Amino acid sequence: MVDLQDIREAAQRIEPYARTTPVETCGMLDELAGRSIFLKCENLQKVGAFKFRGACNAVMGLDDEDAARGVVTHSSGNHAQALALAAGMRGIKATIVMPSDAPRVKRSAVEGYGAVVVECEPTQEARERNARMIVEREGATFISPYDDHRIIAGQGTTYLELHEQVAELDALIVPLGGGGLLSGMSIAARALNPNIRIIGVEPELADDAAESVRIGRIVPQRPPRTIADGLRTSLGTLTFPIIRENVDEILSVSDEAIVCAMHVIWERAKLVVEPSAVVGVAAVLQESFTSRAGMGRTAVVLSGGNLDLSQLPW
Amino acid sequence: MVDLQDIREAAQRIEPYARTTPVETCGMLDELAGRSIFLKCENLQKVGAFKFRGACNAVMGLDDEDAARGVVTHSSGNHAQALALAAGMRGIKATIVMPSDAPRVKRSAVEGYGAVVVECEPTQEARERNARMIVEREGATFISPYDDHRIIAGQGTTYLELHEQVAELDALIVPLGGGGLLSGMSIAARALNPNIRIIGVEPELADDAAESVRIGRIVPQRPPRTIADGLRTSLGTLTFPIIRENVDEILSVSDEAIVCAMHVIWERAKLVVEPSAVVGVAAVLQESFTSRAGMGRTAVVLSGGNLDLSQLPW
Repeated sequence: MVDLQDIREAAQRIEPYARTTPVETCGMLDELAGRSIFLKCENLQKVGAFKFRGACNAVMGLDDEDAARGVVTHSSGNHAQALALAAGMRGIKATIVMPSDAPRVKRSAVEGYGAVVVECEPTQEARERNARMIVEREGATFISPYDDHRIIAGQGTTYLELHEQVAELDALIVPLGGGGLLSGMSIAARALNPNIRIIGVEPELADDAAESVRIGRIVPQRPPRTIADGLRTSLGTLTFPIIRENVDEILSVSDEAIVCAMHVIWERAKLVVEPSAVVGVAAVLQESFTSRAGMGRTAVVLSGGNLDLSQLPW
Repeated sequence: MVDLQDIREAAQRIEPYARTTPVETCGMLDELAGRSIFLKCENLQKVGAFKFRGACNAVMGLDDEDAARGVVTHSSGNHAQALALAAGMRGIKATIVMPSDAPRVKRSAVEGYGAVVVECEPTQEARERNARMIVEREGATFISPYDDHRIIAGQGTTYLELHEQVAELDALIVPLGGGGLLSGMSIAARALNPNIRIIGVEPELADDAAESVRIGRIVPQRPPRTIADGLRTSLGTLTFPIIRENVDEILSVSDEAIVCAMHVIWERAKLVVEPSAVVGVAAVLQESFTSRAGMGRTAVVLSGGNLDLSQLPW
């Protein structure tokens, strides 16, 4: 199990490499939300997403012998870039298994960070099989995007920073896909600020987490259609129990609300954020939320800013 | 004349209202530029532009009697929004004279901050005449977008912050339109860091400042066509001599380079910036600049982030 001490150690480990991201505020957003909103800007993290924290913690925590054999993951998203950069910083090999239908631009990004890309058929089974093969053949360490203690501890460092940056938070709102960020942050938040209200937010079109918590076991994500492509994953076996224990509430937001929140953040907060990053903003702008009492000081995590600028949803 | 003391007083005056904007770095930008670039993010300033600093200094510095009669300017750009917000914060009236062909969205923005908009014919003469009329009729104080000591001192506070945020700067690069930001920052920079190299950047399609300095008198801007709409103005009678004295060099950049720099900042630094804001970035990415020795630590001001998100230039 990950505890506050693990997260503190992760913070020390990644400190020379990761960025302390700023917290921004926005008068118009406060007005619309009816409360003070503190935006934790993980879109300004290295590789443009919080994922760098966990990947960096995992890579820098390897002993030299394991490190020399490299790391591997299967992903076409921000975790792939994060692992590629962290491995590059340590001077070790990263192999990224990617489905053959992954956008060219994502492949180039990962290669740009110096990783080796291995193409496979676009099925979950093929991705896992190829990654396993590389583990067996090269002795590389497999690093999951979220279901890994090192990753959870790394993502949890986001709350340590936030805790130093904003006093007396009443609520914490975090995007929820595989649950790495929410579980990590919730451990630190519960330990440092026991009464804080912790809320996960997922897209209505990928609301497997709420259902999983409701029925008490992990429900796999159905074929995902949401614009929030970073939140299409199911909960992991490690993240699920942490979320059940620490999280007070899971909300869901429509894709329309996500696009609208994204526009507000671009236009008013002047920050480039991807759809997955703004589900928390979409949640606090919903009438069912603005009408709630309390939570006068609410932190919302903007989780990333990687998207194709030539294909904006407005 | 404006001096460091005026700028320090301006900083104290605006401190309760303006934002201390962050300085961001971006690994990819450093690589492309071949030096360490520090981005001073005035796009994250109130109203999305450095203009709030000067407008706020001017409004908050009025004595109560003058303040009661309100303020007036003619502008359809960021200065109008800045003055409207500053006046609203002080609880006084702001009147903005705007050409009848100004985009609807700019008018709404200013009205959203509580200012009164007076429409006039779309000529410089009509704008000035209408503003003068309001000064005479209402006793309002006219506040120029740049050619005013209070404005220059207010914009200069940007350098005071930068000086605290980044040690040992070798160079400072600032967008140049009317010259308010460059002249204010140059006064603070020369006083606090005498050897810093100070560079103004203007669009090739609005390069009146370089010509003015070359021939020693203010050359009016020809009909402007550049995409950098905030930099289409000519130098002012106050800003011109300050720039002649303090600025080492004036560079110009093409509109193509501006669009390219804007894309780099959006995609890699995850910041929403307007075309006028990135002329400094375009300058440091030019081959004629990347090949220069020295200036290992260069600050570049991103001056604003207000633009129509539905009409991006790519």
